[in-house]
Amino acid sequence: MNNVLVGQSGGPTAVINASLYGVITESLKHRGEIDRIYGAINGIEGFLKGQVVDLERELDKEDLEALKTTPAAYLGSCRYKLPEDLNNSVYQTLFDKFSALDIKYFLYIGGNDSMDTVSKLSAFAKKINSPVRVLGIPKTIDNDLVHTDHTPGFGSAAKYVASTVREVCLDASIYDKPSVTIVEIMGRHAGWLTASSVLARKYPGDNPALIYLPEVAFSEERFLDEVQKALKEKTNVVVCVSEGINDGNGVFICEHASNGEVAVDNFGHKMLTGCGKYLENFIKNKLDVKVRSIELNVLQRSSSGYASLTDIQEAAHAGAHGIEAGLSGETGKMISFVRAKGEPYSLSYETVDVSEVCNKEKAVPVEWITKNGTDLSDEMIEYIKPLIQGEPEVPMKGGLPYFPHRPNK
Amino acid sequence: MNNVLVGQSGGPTAVINASLYGVITESLKHRGEIDRIYGAINGIEGFLKGQVVDLERELDKEDLEALKTTPAAYLGSCRYKLPEDLNNSVYQTLFDKFSALDIKYFLYIGGNDSMDTVSKLSAFAKKINSPVRVLGIPKTIDNDLVHTDHTPGFGSAAKYVASTVREVCLDASIYDKPSVTIVEIMGRHAGWLTASSVLARKYPGDNPALIYLPEVAFSEERFLDEVQKALKEKTNVVVCVSEGINDGNGVFICEHASNGEVAVDNFGHKMLTGCGKYLENFIKNKLDVKVRSIELNVLQRSSSGYASLTDIQEAAHAGAHGIEAGLSGETGKMISFVRAKGEPYSLSYETVDVSEVCNKEKAVPVEWITKNGTDLSDEMIEYIKPLIQGEPEVPMKGGLPYFPHRPNK
Repeated sequence: MNNVLVGQSGGPTAVINASLYGVITESLKHRGEIDRIYGAINGIEGFLKGQVVDLERELDKEDLEALKTTPAAYLGSCRYKLPEDLNNSVYQTLFDKFSALDIKYFLYIGGNDSMDTVSKLSAFAKKINSPVRVLGIPKTIDNDLVHTDHTPGFGSAAKYVASTVREVCLDASIYDKPSVTIVEIMGRHAGWLTASSVLARKYPGDNPALIYLPEVAFSEERFLDEVQKALKEKTNVVVCVSEGINDGNGVFICEHASNGEVAVDNFGHKMLTGCGKYLENFIKNKLDVKVRSIELNVLQRSSSGYASLTDIQEAAHAGAHGIEAGLSGETGKMISFVRAKGEPYSLSYETVDVSEVCNKEKAVPVEWITKNGTDLSDEMIEYIKPLIQGEPEVPMKGGLPYFPHRPNK
Repeated sequence: MNNVLVGQSGGPTAVINASLYGVITESLKHRGEIDRIYGAINGIEGFLKGQVVDLERELDKEDLEALKTTPAAYLGSCRYKLPEDLNNSVYQTLFDKFSALDIKYFLYIGGNDSMDTVSKLSAFAKKINSPVRVLGIPKTIDNDLVHTDHTPGFGSAAKYVASTVREVCLDASIYDKPSVTIVEIMGRHAGWLTASSVLARKYPGDNPALIYLPEVAFSEERFLDEVQKALKEKTNVVVCVSEGINDGNGVFICEHASNGEVAVDNFGHKMLTGCGKYLENFIKNKLDVKVRSIELNVLQRSSSGYASLTDIQEAAHAGAHGIEAGLSGETGKMISFVRAKGEPYSLSYETVDVSEVCNKEKAVPVEWITKNGTDLSDEMIEYIKPLIQGEPEVPMKGGLPYFPHRPNK
């Protein structure tokens, strides 16, 4: 028996299940070489507890198709960091469990931290001469993985941000009274998603008037100055800020609100919230205008209605390509997107050594950030535009999107 | 010349422009009786400053059609309260301006406060024997107008809330670790919109586990108890709360966060924010679980992607019926929705005296609130369901929704 095990790890996106769909459907095409398709519930952490499901049995045809437009992680996820020391017993435990299920291909759909898991497992497989092939399918709305043109999940989140900010700009502009609206967008260290708000403009000079990324040191005094200037040009000013804006010395602006007491996740990342609210109060105290802040929050990564068809298709292809790579003998690799130069947009799928990807972050190039750090260049617009094209047909039941779910989940 | 003047007033919804579309297209059908269709920019307040536009000239066919799926207020809005004393000179000024433009029909699209304007203007018209007919087209996501089955704008907001909460529930349930997610939904005194989150459930017993409306006195101790009980039944608990939850004695829960210092708008309404955040911190301090709060904020009233086709069509009909009512001699009336008893859902359009509508609020019936104020009855589900049916085709350009806009707006 040669079986596939697929797991999902890290934060949700709109298309992580589209990659799962790609893994399953591509596996089904290789009936002679692949026997069973198992899903690890709650990633590697759940798999360690024996939580495994036979995906072919569980998903009927309708639910398999609906996976493509179902946000979050159908299999559940985890944030589980494998130990640095490959001699730790957890590795042998995992590979014993792989053997027990005749797993030949382990595909892990995830971001930066999940690629760390792929890297360590493939290193251990090499060490013990295991035939298990371990492959990573990229996924993150942050678009911060290196050695890939972009990541599945980003296009849908970017489309959500651009569409929603456009709607917020309409909403914010109905009264003939000066106002400032601050939209806080996800992105800890990389500003890709916040940058996509530039597409919200309906005409040159439209809102959002100011866009702040974590790649540029943020100064509250300069911010106040720039907001005042913008208010001279338009009655209603919309500002987009990344949750990760910081003073350039590692201190997040949102930490100014909470006296430096910020929670930390398992990987040591600071858990951010609230720079929009902080800046709302800052402007309220300085200027006599109406101020509101809006945190797009998890909606930007879990919306089916604003997902990008291009993103969904690419995520599914990434999953399928993971199976192809495994079948052709590759291991310790991540599927990578390579964009052809010039128009029209076209993408090819390759593989890169996962050890060159994990624990690194790709920031927005400084030359794509303009106007003293408050706007984006045409290069950025041309980069993002193809990724947000097309609208999926979300299956609707009773006026609401239909999402398949595991029993009682 | 017999001309129409149409204005928009109060907070935005997804379909206030669909009513504008209905007013314009119905007016165009009555060429012999109606000459020009003027739009008041920024409602009655902008009209007083002479801000008027010829809508037939400004809108080409494509933009007129696109109005149906454009959120917020194409004409701009205002929050302007007319004086109680009809002898105030502002009334004569307004009617002089009506005469100067040969206005015979003034249609005002708005909520509670806007109906107050309709009531006063029609009373003044009667007083001075003016031929101007004044009619109100209802609009509010809050669904709190009396003498109408429901209000345009509510169905789309309800569909947004139900769809988005369903997506938030997926997002909140990916980790196998206890968590509480609190979703804050608009609704100052009426819980209709928060109640619509009950439709988010995919199966009996699904999230949201607890739903709190302003109609039921809120107790923090009971809340803590109910959350703890819910955590015994499911790992990830999603709670929906109305922004207007209060202690039953007029003190909003969000005021507990800000020591009672709450801003007040022109009508004396407290401007609310943050009970979700307040309860997030409350649970964090009491229980050792991950807690997150999500404020749906203006997105719930300004989303085109989750709008209800039924709501859009009814809003357009309401606008058209306003013109018909004016042509048949009615004034001082609001268009009212009357739902036929039984299945299938069918709606007729009537008129009610606007003086019986304005400055009143329709709360959720207590008998539709169950389980000690944490859930809704089947009657509520049957009431809301027909209103969220159908998806509009939003015109897309370059991967983003196309919204017509006034020059430089």
